[in-house]
Amino acid sequence: MDIKKLGFEELENLCGEIRAKIIEVVSRNGGHLSSNMGAVELIVAMHYVFDVESDPFIFDVSHQSYAHKLLTSRWEKFDTLRQKDGISGYTKPSESPYDYFIAGHSSTSLSLALGAAKAIRLKKEELKRIPVALIGDGAMSAGMAYEALNELGDRKYPVVIILNDNEMSISKPIGAISKYLSEMMAGRFYQKFKRKVEQILDYLPESATYMAKRFEDGFKLITPGMLFEELGLEYIGPVDGHDLRALVHTLLTAKKLGKPAIVHTQTVKGKGYIKAEGQFEKWHGVAPFDIESGEPVKRGKAKKSATELFSDALLELAKEHKNIVGVTAAMPSGTGLNKLISEFPERFWDVAIAEQHAVTSMCAMAKEGFKPFVAIYSTFLQRAYDQIIHDAAIMNLGVVFAIDRAGIVGEDGETHQGAFDISYLNAVPNMTIFAPRDEIGMKYAVEFGYRYSGVCAFRYPRNSFLPCEGFESSHFEYGTGEVLKNGESKKLFIGFGNGVGRALLCAKLIDEDIGVVDLRFVKPIDKKLLRNLAQKHKEWYIFSDSAKRGGVSEIISGFLAEEKISGITVTSFEYPDIFIQHGITAEVEEMLGLLPHQLAEKIIKK
Amino acid sequence: MDIKKLGFEELENLCGEIRAKIIEVVSRNGGHLSSNMGAVELIVAMHYVFDVESDPFIFDVSHQSYAHKLLTSRWEKFDTLRQKDGISGYTKPSESPYDYFIAGHSSTSLSLALGAAKAIRLKKEELKRIPVALIGDGAMSAGMAYEALNELGDRKYPVVIILNDNEMSISKPIGAISKYLSEMMAGRFYQKFKRKVEQILDYLPESATYMAKRFEDGFKLITPGMLFEELGLEYIGPVDGHDLRALVHTLLTAKKLGKPAIVHTQTVKGKGYIKAEGQFEKWHGVAPFDIESGEPVKRGKAKKSATELFSDALLELAKEHKNIVGVTAAMPSGTGLNKLISEFPERFWDVAIAEQHAVTSMCAMAKEGFKPFVAIYSTFLQRAYDQIIHDAAIMNLGVVFAIDRAGIVGEDGETHQGAFDISYLNAVPNMTIFAPRDEIGMKYAVEFGYRYSGVCAFRYPRNSFLPCEGFESSHFEYGTGEVLKNGESKKLFIGFGNGVGRALLCAKLIDEDIGVVDLRFVKPIDKKLLRNLAQKHKEWYIFSDSAKRGGVSEIISGFLAEEKISGITVTSFEYPDIFIQHGITAEVEEMLGLLPHQLAEKIIKK
Repeated sequence: MDIKKLGFEELENLCGEIRAKIIEVVSRNGGHLSSNMGAVELIVAMHYVFDVESDPFIFDVSHQSYAHKLLTSRWEKFDTLRQKDGISGYTKPSESPYDYFIAGHSSTSLSLALGAAKAIRLKKEELKRIPVALIGDGAMSAGMAYEALNELGDRKYPVVIILNDNEMSISKPIGAISKYLSEMMAGRFYQKFKRKVEQILDYLPESATYMAKRFEDGFKLITPGMLFEELGLEYIGPVDGHDLRALVHTLLTAKKLGKPAIVHTQTVKGKGYIKAEGQFEKWHGVAPFDIESGEPVKRGKAKKSATELFSDALLELAKEHKNIVGVTAAMPSGTGLNKLISEFPERFWDVAIAEQHAVTSMCAMAKEGFKPFVAIYSTFLQRAYDQIIHDAAIMNLGVVFAIDRAGIVGEDGETHQGAFDISYLNAVPNMTIFAPRDEIGMKYAVEFGYRYSGVCAFRYPRNSFLPCEGFESSHFEYGTGEVLKNGESKKLFIGFGNGVGRALLCAKLIDEDIGVVDLRFVKPIDKKLLRNLAQKHKEWYIFSDSAKRGGVSEIISGFLAEEKISGITVTSFEYPDIFIQHGITAEVEEMLGLLPHQLAEKIIKK
Repeated sequence: MDIKKLGFEELENLCGEIRAKIIEVVSRNGGHLSSNMGAVELIVAMHYVFDVESDPFIFDVSHQSYAHKLLTSRWEKFDTLRQKDGISGYTKPSESPYDYFIAGHSSTSLSLALGAAKAIRLKKEELKRIPVALIGDGAMSAGMAYEALNELGDRKYPVVIILNDNEMSISKPIGAISKYLSEMMAGRFYQKFKRKVEQILDYLPESATYMAKRFEDGFKLITPGMLFEELGLEYIGPVDGHDLRALVHTLLTAKKLGKPAIVHTQTVKGKGYIKAEGQFEKWHGVAPFDIESGEPVKRGKAKKSATELFSDALLELAKEHKNIVGVTAAMPSGTGLNKLISEFPERFWDVAIAEQHAVTSMCAMAKEGFKPFVAIYSTFLQRAYDQIIHDAAIMNLGVVFAIDRAGIVGEDGETHQGAFDISYLNAVPNMTIFAPRDEIGMKYAVEFGYRYSGVCAFRYPRNSFLPCEGFESSHFEYGTGEVLKNGESKKLFIGFGNGVGRALLCAKLIDEDIGVVDLRFVKPIDKKLLRNLAQKHKEWYIFSDSAKRGGVSEIISGFLAEEKISGITVTSFEYPDIFIQHGITAEVEEMLGLLPHQLAEKIIKK
């Protein structure tokens, strides 16, 4: 289908079909609903005005790119959305040549557009190709977006930026930028002001043309796009992001400018599905739901997720200790910090998509004697790596990193896997790294974090912990592991975090008296315990939901080398050195051979 | 001395004394000259208006904080600036209670100020304490600064931000922000415009007060601070940053506002030392120099630095291959990319202090078929860790990371040591990590980077390579190490990068026939070679200028474990798990026991 040949009415019908398809598939598979429903006309207009065969189409975060996928030969396969080996929930060049770039983390689109523009200029293709980036207002809060605007406004490569302003980023609008955008929309003060000034100009004598020119320059500055124009970008807008004619017209204008242009569009999140329209966080990412009622499809009573356990434990402790504060970077319900923000709005903050700022601002609070909990997903904490080192660890401040989504995250796939945190944090001096293995352990982890005076981090999985029945956690003691089960076998299972449950499940499947240890701390590691265990057990198996490279096994091997302990074999059951694809967590683990029964087989076969 | 009791004339004299002291000590010890000379009045005014005993004094990067150090009980000890165990070139709380926070990386000050402000509010000290941050225009280009402004403009905690605008960041002014600031300063268009509008208002009938009010609102928007006011900050300025009276007056005003205020000051970098005044990069960080002539004190003919070798090699290759492009984040001469930017301004860019954007924009260029070299110091590359993973590695794009300042960096100390790059990059799937050991090796490293199709990184030290005479490098071959010297001893020295020279020097001091290997690649590691070596040599010693945690030794131990190779002892001569202090590199290495003769002694004693 060549979309460029359709009339507006046909395009509008197409939008309707796309919406129906999105609702149908997302209600079955889960996924990002409201961002995709809101962006349908934007994407149809992009495809109408730009050429997906040659122009770089760049989707920020790309959680709004479903319509783009449907328009580029993936209509049939779309039913497999977010399923293993199926269509990814994000743009993915290995899935389709029409996906220009991978994206799952926020605010990379403007840098990508700028890089593409530089390439286009060097290839002398400026008359033929132009990068077009679609970015939400929420993504504008990340510093990275500004770094790109700063260069773009200076060097002025032709790029079209479509700002999709739905005033709500992932959760509530946060920050000055967001306020700025919504004030622009709300009062329309500036437009009124402009008209008044025009009226005044009529009072002036004819000779005052010089002055009028000056005024015009002035006007330019007081249009809504001021902020962007100050940064050297042409601003066009605001445009109704559901009005195809207006969008096409505006994008055509922007495309022809020959310089960087920002097209400010207003959309309604969830547009076209009444239950989701205008909702904040609720319909952003959803599990399968019933289209009629909007209610989630029941999947049996699940155990509490680690996130909920964290949230409950921190809330309880925060009630007791007034010096506990905390921050999330635009993931209030994702991290469970929403409960604390609503209970203690003066002590817990959502600072928007701004991991760097989140970490460093909390470091200052620690310096002032507060106890900050920084709740960020493992994969997003990568954005604050320098701040962890430079601002938290050098001074060894009492900042607690609560690392959510550590391990396989499921349907979000390679951009989101929480695989690397142990590796990148282990290198950081002064850092303490630990992990709870079960429900009560989470409570103790939060308590330990509170009590411990230096910088520390604990990690926990998405969803609930693997069962550790019969081995309920005790309190954490600095740098101390715990023998859960003595065994006479030369085999020893060493687990960390959610890996402990995996070790226990695996041990049950092997007809041997296998000892099981919860390491509890990977930094510092319990040297005394490991030395003792090395006396008795010669085959160590390491269970941890983390990358093998730099992970728990390498740390243990490094320890054995340092201590000159020989005669121990260390087998890692961590993640291989690849980017791990999307799918239901258990399916992905099966693919990796990490399900307890698969591990047991490997061990027995040996 | 209570500075608050001095009159303006005495304060001005004090500024003169401070400048004389700074010139004297920096000419002898080296250090940051121009930034410190330019900030003397700003800092004296800060101390006059604010209370260093209670108000958080936050210095961005803190390479301009010498005057502050001199004013806070460090006048006598200042002669030891940047010497081992002496005064740090940056603020350092463990050195003085008047140093509120550590800083060496850019653009953390606004987040710190915001965190401090949150703490102050919770402690109900808002009438008694106010954070004051001093930040340069260059530091405003980093996204982190915007993330903080975004929250500050929204929540409006009282904070005073002194923007030290010398229009030159570290090197030339870059980016839209910088242009914006300098245009504000240059044309003074807005002030003129404002006056014109005021004149026009005189024409209007008396009844037009409503309109006049509207105009006033309009005026506010077209003052120089518009950009900041749009972000919700009160803007005051511009103020002459060398006029103490004006500064004190303005800071007093800002302090009383009870909301976030940005005081825009204009200063001359290098002010008071005529040879440095108004110079761009040259006088930013300097080696010891003769005050009279301004010439550097000769220290004998040094070998070419690794940076120069990189610069030469890349320049040569870039002449040959038009698809080579490159980027630096505000370190053009520090990374040697200045030569390439001046030779090929359309292919090499300085994107300001914006490591995240630098990396991701180059990823798009790689996607377009170019071969980007990203030249960033090891310590600053930490800022782009997520972008390396998310934008370069997942798609395995042909981006080459040229990691300068890997290892001990000398006088800059703990905030700048290039210790962690191997650890944090090893965890990243698809990443290839290698290192040259000598002059010709640098040329081959650059060539290998060019030829290799995927994402890769190579690291090299500050200053010149340790000598590897008689063992000149050959071309790099993917994943292949090189036996430099066979030996009959059971001992084996394994070096990586600059560690190879250390291994060779150390081997000479031991009266044994020790084999020496250059690993060349730590990822992927040369498994075949190591397997063979494991047959013959049982005592392995690892030489690498990198952190032990997650470093080369742990990688090798992990490999031995994975391969179930037993009977090998691995001894690491990498950096201990601490933040390493400042001092001349050799002195610091001596302190760590890493000089070749110290290592030889350790080995012999064993």
